[in-house]
Amino acid sequence: MDIDLFEKYESNVRGYIRSFPTIFTRAKNATVWDHHGKSYIDFFGGAGSLNYGHNDPAVQEAMIDYIQRDGMLNALDKATDAKYHFIKKFQETILLPRGLDYKIQFVGPTGTNAVETALKLARKVKQRSKIVAFTNAYHGHTLGALAVTGNEFYHDDYYGVPLNVTKMPFDQYFDEDDQMDSIDMMRRYYEDGSSGYEVPAGIIVETIQGEGGINVSSIEWLKKLEKMCRDLDILLIIDDIQVGNGRTGNFFSFERAGITPDIITISKSIGTGLPMAIVLMRPEIDQWSPGEHTGTFRGNSLAFIAGATALKRWDNDEFAKEIRRKGEWVEKRFRAIKARFPDHISDVRGLGMIWGIESSIEGFCNEVSREAFEHGLLAETAGATDQVIKFLAPLTISQAELDKGLDILEAAIEATAAKHPTTKQEVTA
Amino acid sequence: MDIDLFEKYESNVRGYIRSFPTIFTRAKNATVWDHHGKSYIDFFGGAGSLNYGHNDPAVQEAMIDYIQRDGMLNALDKATDAKYHFIKKFQETILLPRGLDYKIQFVGPTGTNAVETALKLARKVKQRSKIVAFTNAYHGHTLGALAVTGNEFYHDDYYGVPLNVTKMPFDQYFDEDDQMDSIDMMRRYYEDGSSGYEVPAGIIVETIQGEGGINVSSIEWLKKLEKMCRDLDILLIIDDIQVGNGRTGNFFSFERAGITPDIITISKSIGTGLPMAIVLMRPEIDQWSPGEHTGTFRGNSLAFIAGATALKRWDNDEFAKEIRRKGEWVEKRFRAIKARFPDHISDVRGLGMIWGIESSIEGFCNEVSREAFEHGLLAETAGATDQVIKFLAPLTISQAELDKGLDILEAAIEATAAKHPTTKQEVTA
Amino acid sequence: MDIDLFEKYESNVRGYIRSFPTIFTRAKNATVWDHHGKSYIDFFGGAGSLNYGHNDPAVQEAMIDYIQRDGMLNALDKATDAKYHFIKKFQETILLPRGLDYKIQFVGPTGTNAVETALKLARKVKQRSKIVAFTNAYHGHTLGALAVTGNEFYHDDYYGVPLNVTKMPFDQYFDEDDQMDSIDMMRRYYEDGSSGYEVPAGIIVETIQGEGGINVSSIEWLKKLEKMCRDLDILLIIDDIQVGNGRTGNFFSFERAGITPDIITISKSIGTGLPMAIVLMRPEIDQWSPGEHTGTFRGNSLAFIAGATALKRWDNDEFAKEIRRKGEWVEKRFRAIKARFPDHISDVRGLGMIWGIESSIEGFCNEVSREAFEHGLLAETAGATDQVIKFLAPLTISQAELDKGLDILEAAIEATAAKHPTTKQEVTA
Amino acid sequence: MDIDLFEKYESNVRGYIRSFPTIFTRAKNATVWDHHGKSYIDFFGGAGSLNYGHNDPAVQEAMIDYIQRDGMLNALDKATDAKYHFIKKFQETILLPRGLDYKIQFVGPTGTNAVETALKLARKVKQRSKIVAFTNAYHGHTLGALAVTGNEFYHDDYYGVPLNVTKMPFDQYFDEDDQMDSIDMMRRYYEDGSSGYEVPAGIIVETIQGEGGINVSSIEWLKKLEKMCRDLDILLIIDDIQVGNGRTGNFFSFERAGITPDIITISKSIGTGLPMAIVLMRPEIDQWSPGEHTGTFRGNSLAFIAGATALKRWDNDEFAKEIRRKGEWVEKRFRAIKARFPDHISDVRGLGMIWGIESSIEGFCNEVSREAFEHGLLAETAGATDQVIKFLAPLTISQAELDKGLDILEAAIEATAAKHPTTKQEVTA
Repeated sequence: MDIDLFEKYESNVRGYIRSFPTIFTRAKNATVWDHHGKSYIDFFGGAGSLNYGHNDPAVQEAMIDYIQRDGMLNALDKATDAKYHFIKKFQETILLPRGLDYKIQFVGPTGTNAVETALKLARKVKQRSKIVAFTNAYHGHTLGALAVTGNEFYHDDYYGVPLNVTKMPFDQYFDEDDQMDSIDMMRRYYEDGSSGYEVPAGIIVETIQGEGGINVSSIEWLKKLEKMCRDLDILLIIDDIQVGNGRTGNFFSFERAGITPDIITISKSIGTGLPMAIVLMRPEIDQWSPGEHTGTFRGNSLAFIAGATALKRWDNDEFAKEIRRKGEWVEKRFRAIKARFPDHISDVRGLGMIWGIESSIEGFCNEVSREAFEHGLLAETAGATDQVIKFLAPLTISQAELDKGLDILEAAIEATAAKHPTTKQEVTA
Repeated sequence: MDIDLFEKYESNVRGYIRSFPTIFTRAKNATVWDHHGKSYIDFFGGAGSLNYGHNDPAVQEAMIDYIQRDGMLNALDKATDAKYHFIKKFQETILLPRGLDYKIQFVGPTGTNAVETALKLARKVKQRSKIVAFTNAYHGHTLGALAVTGNEFYHDDYYGVPLNVTKMPFDQYFDEDDQMDSIDMMRRYYEDGSSGYEVPAGIIVETIQGEGGINVSSIEWLKKLEKMCRDLDILLIIDDIQVGNGRTGNFFSFERAGITPDIITISKSIGTGLPMAIVLMRPEIDQWSPGEHTGTFRGNSLAFIAGATALKRWDNDEFAKEIRRKGEWVEKRFRAIKARFPDHISDVRGLGMIWGIESSIEGFCNEVSREAFEHGLLAETAGATDQVIKFLAPLTISQAELDKGLDILEAAIEATAAKHPTTKQEVTA
Repeated sequence: MDIDLFEKYESNVRGYIRSFPTIFTRAKNATVWDHHGKSYIDFFGGAGSLNYGHNDPAVQEAMIDYIQRDGMLNALDKATDAKYHFIKKFQETILLPRGLDYKIQFVGPTGTNAVETALKLARKVKQRSKIVAFTNAYHGHTLGALAVTGNEFYHDDYYGVPLNVTKMPFDQYFDEDDQMDSIDMMRRYYEDGSSGYEVPAGIIVETIQGEGGINVSSIEWLKKLEKMCRDLDILLIIDDIQVGNGRTGNFFSFERAGITPDIITISKSIGTGLPMAIVLMRPEIDQWSPGEHTGTFRGNSLAFIAGATALKRWDNDEFAKEIRRKGEWVEKRFRAIKARFPDHISDVRGLGMIWGIESSIEGFCNEVSREAFEHGLLAETAGATDQVIKFLAPLTISQAELDKGLDILEAAIEATAAKHPTTKQEVTA
Repeated sequence: MDIDLFEKYESNVRGYIRSFPTIFTRAKNATVWDHHGKSYIDFFGGAGSLNYGHNDPAVQEAMIDYIQRDGMLNALDKATDAKYHFIKKFQETILLPRGLDYKIQFVGPTGTNAVETALKLARKVKQRSKIVAFTNAYHGHTLGALAVTGNEFYHDDYYGVPLNVTKMPFDQYFDEDDQMDSIDMMRRYYEDGSSGYEVPAGIIVETIQGEGGINVSSIEWLKKLEKMCRDLDILLIIDDIQVGNGRTGNFFSFERAGITPDIITISKSIGTGLPMAIVLMRPEIDQWSPGEHTGTFRGNSLAFIAGATALKRWDNDEFAKEIRRKGEWVEKRFRAIKARFPDHISDVRGLGMIWGIESSIEGFCNEVSREAFEHGLLAETAGATDQVIKFLAPLTISQAELDKGLDILEAAIEATAAKHPTTKQEVTA
């Protein structure tokens, strides 16, 4: 196999192959191997799709069994036993024990489709066209989803991105000790009939902005947001595509704030990395007509089989504890790195098993990523100017894999810092 | 398993489970079984996703092998051996022998994402915002794709569907012997600077409209369309999601007209029914920046493995011949049905292995579908008023399965016709 | 006075000063004079604003009287005696004798504001967002009005022209003997739930397209249009801004077809050339809330005074007869010109006192206009490529003025034709 | 004359006739008379159109003279002596002495058309689609202008208001001592490539929001706004339609801040209340093509004649001094009223000759307006909930008229306060 084939035949749009220029052939838990046999610790984690690790043996077994017994692989939205068991497991293991009452919609198997569906539903139910999204948000890449995504790289007038989306500042967007937060701002706007701001159908929010740079919203802000939504009759939509599925230490990322969204979008790890996406909605919001939102691959049975198997990890609270324990370890190591390189690392932030190391030196994080790759670690950057190195390893990563990865990362930062000895260039957005 | 679980927990949006109210557990080639062990001939074919049949043994073997050797299942757009072999096979078996020079973009694994991508690319390349789509078109269900879809059921102001799409009449939309066709109409509009019509970036067209009611465009119309696009510098986008992958007797549906699109969207059967979608573009149109269109599930390795295996059927021309042979058989049987029920069946149309039987009696086709289901056949309706019964069986269907299915269908029509003895109610859209 | 002052201080957007490069100082009926004392016959007629001629003595007297008695000049939409008498005169002289029952809305004193108002009202009443306008239409120059205007010169993505307007072919747009007209086309679209065309709130139409090139719709087409609007519950909006006020021989241009619009826009000559615009609506459509559409200059009293005075011409039917008589004379002379220059003049068309002479030689009409100006005639061009010389003289023009103008025009055509002796260049739009 | 005629024949949209239910017949300086001979002091001032008073004798004389000598009344954008003298007077008396270099565009004679034109020009010049407007802004009533207007009463999805407008908080919108002002907010957004906010083509602002409730921006805020526009290459558009023409004590309202806008919109009093509107633009921004923005009534000669005559008041600085002197008197009286009714009047604010008295008691100001009308004073309310009584009397008002009006107003407040003795109901927007 020659990697040149991709350059020759695959569109220029290809991206990660440029960060990680090799051909991968094998993967197990948090380790992957390329066609030269070189191994890499995976801190990238399929951008949140591999919370349960690569090729979990129980998942593999369940998939093979389903294939061997000629299970129906493609079913559109017909009923299958695979779907039956997924729904049952999800309700019994995740929703009911948390006292959550949601109906499940299976949508086209991409996060962006879940987002589109959530926005359509909110607009339909409230009969209003406006949606609020936040600065630095990332919600995917189709036209409706693009409209609620912040990064201007993805916007262009010619695409015809729908414009009925209002962007509001995320928690602590302006300043940590700013007295005026964005919830107060919205309240003022929506209660003033002449502000030019109309009450939206819904507000979509990631409780932790992953692509936006690992920005963690506070519990207080989330509670205030929920209260405003209730007071003003606005639907609260949590996009838990990247930080749900246990990433923060609970199955849903909003559990820590004790809030109850009206609509939730889930994807990525819900099918253990196989294409799958769902939308959860409070029953009274389920006002769809039959067939009003469709899609060929809503019934990807292998993802249902794999997902239902992986959900067994939530049968008791051991998994959640393990996530938090490892997360604390990562935080400790990251804070030590910041302390060691105060001129190069400006911030460390995160929660559970999602962490970011920020540098205000232009290009620093991309250099670290390249250096780490050379030495056997996959780690990507995030943020508008790639100013953050993102930690999204499988939640199932072993302590040995974790330590190895952290060591490679620290060494890569050390090597990169050595190339930027004195001057500290500020990133300009 | 109790089918009530779906009513209790799955969103009201669920559709096909209402047409086919049972739980499917097993599927092989063109036959599926439910949890009561009842079998059904599958004329529905996953709406075009199962051209290679359910659970082809070679495909099953390749998938199991990949899983067992811990192949990387989720890779975003990193390079994997699975992707490598798919690209190589697709170029060598499909594109090169046909003299076609296209680059491949792997997009989020849904047809609608391929359509969105094609429209974005056309707008970006031409720096124009308008897109032309046709009456009765179906291109999927996200906001950009919805905008080019005809059926008003899916439109609602509150969704904020982008409006920079112009709808034009499909071939023979007004009348079979109309002197003015839609290509002449477009030329007139675009050459008149005061028509209110701006030259679009691209024109997206299905050569056979499946959901729209099995409307087959003529070779002459397609040639004329291509010529106008060349003359006026408009990109020609063929949406081959439903009728590509051999459905019409050639791999691509446009081969019969000898035209060369600028952009092609492919999905459904390309991964043998596993989620996968690609966009093909002439190399000079590949003007993407790296990462300008992204998506988590672009690297669904099992679909690459399955798809590459299925493409072996195109190593020689036996498969194409078989499709045409079976298609002729279907046409013969369908025409006989029309002749037998002249008061109930108003038209039979199709090409290769996509066929439709039209009735102008309101509700007739839905009744036939229900009747057929009772007797062991899955067959869906199409068209704005469900006025067509659609034949989309796997291309690999055996003669025995085919005959059995056709017999059930004819019997269902007979039974339904018996309930509509005299009056002939006209469908009003 | 030095005309260079305009170049120095007035925006480049200025237009007619380029066609008629002199400074005008005096005007009476159909003759104007410039600052050098040179006189010009006015076939331009303020683009339809001077149907009652320049400085009609009765109008002058009424205005001076109103000023001298300290009448209220600016009243927003407060009640004044000037407005009172205008409303009374318009109802008694125009609407009641024709059996027309409309309420009057005084809008910002421009035609485009009347159009915006009509579109807003139609959308509000029908709670639908789509509006249909026709190829080559001209409805003015604000964002809502631009959206229904055809000429692409005025469109630009950056202006953010609202896109919920569908353009349909005007009567005989494709071909005079085309069997499929645009009314049939619309019916087909709107009755097909999957055409991609939604039933609009309203259809706005000029019965004769002036700026579009003097395109006269047939009585049959207008009747068919009205019938379709009734059948499909669409509001019929007649834009009579340019061809109302007697231009066609009746006060309203649609009287000849015996149709009754739901909404009518009137401006230009309604205030004898002083800024004024009104919208007429059937009483049941008058669903405005107080103050829902506003504007500072809705109460331009001088225009009310001038307009009410001019309406006296409609007290009996002499004025209408005079218009038709003169129109026939113009037609006779124009047809003779066409007969005399068959290689240069391709068409003559019009109705009442609006006429156009078309040439298919590129630039021909602009040359004629310049030549005529040199010899004392103001005549402008129309159409997407300025392919038509437009006759819009005051309806009150004297026979002497008319003959003098026609003679200058014919001489200008003769002189221009002499410069294009042999080759006949086709205009390409 | 019977006022019922208006109810019978004029659209329900009529507004001011409801506040001031009588028929006006005569007006001189700041006094108007109705058909019963009752007189009223005019604090309403044509909403800013009558800065030079009703029927100024010099203006009357100039208009009558122009009519009597058969001056050209309607000229589209042809050159006339009336226009020549207006341009010359405006440049020599207003622009040159202030060191301002602007070209003049004559637009359709309404403020909203000037706003539309300014927005189109900004978008065209910068090739960006976004425009920023502020909370509580009022810029008029066509679709483009509506988009930048705050009050939600005027918005409705069905109107298709263009959505590429971003609303930002006006100066001190949130709180007088808020540390974060909207300029800092915009800077943060525009410098962050992932905020979801794109740099706009222009920012349109009223330096004092009249309809919005007499909100006076600070000099510091205006300077900061100008600086940000320069730094980020954004066009600064001042809408001086209501508060220009001397209202604040200088000809332009922005003179007090020493800033230089890129584009300025002027209307209302520029033609002494006759329909007229202009756009001023720095010469390098004048990138229009000839005829790119048109309109029938751009050449309303009577307004040019009247306006040029009125501009003579600016030949020396006496007029400005007089405005400021009267303004101080109004402020003194208003502050005394507030001191006298502390439970009923919550704020007094303004500048020059535009002032507002705010009450937080629901409906209070409308009651005062009605009471004042009964006793011979025209005074309107402003703000989203009509919470402000607006003072916009002619700048030429005599001391006697002013005192009489202020006495009636104070008495009306006293009478209204007496009806709201104890409870203080808070206005909720």
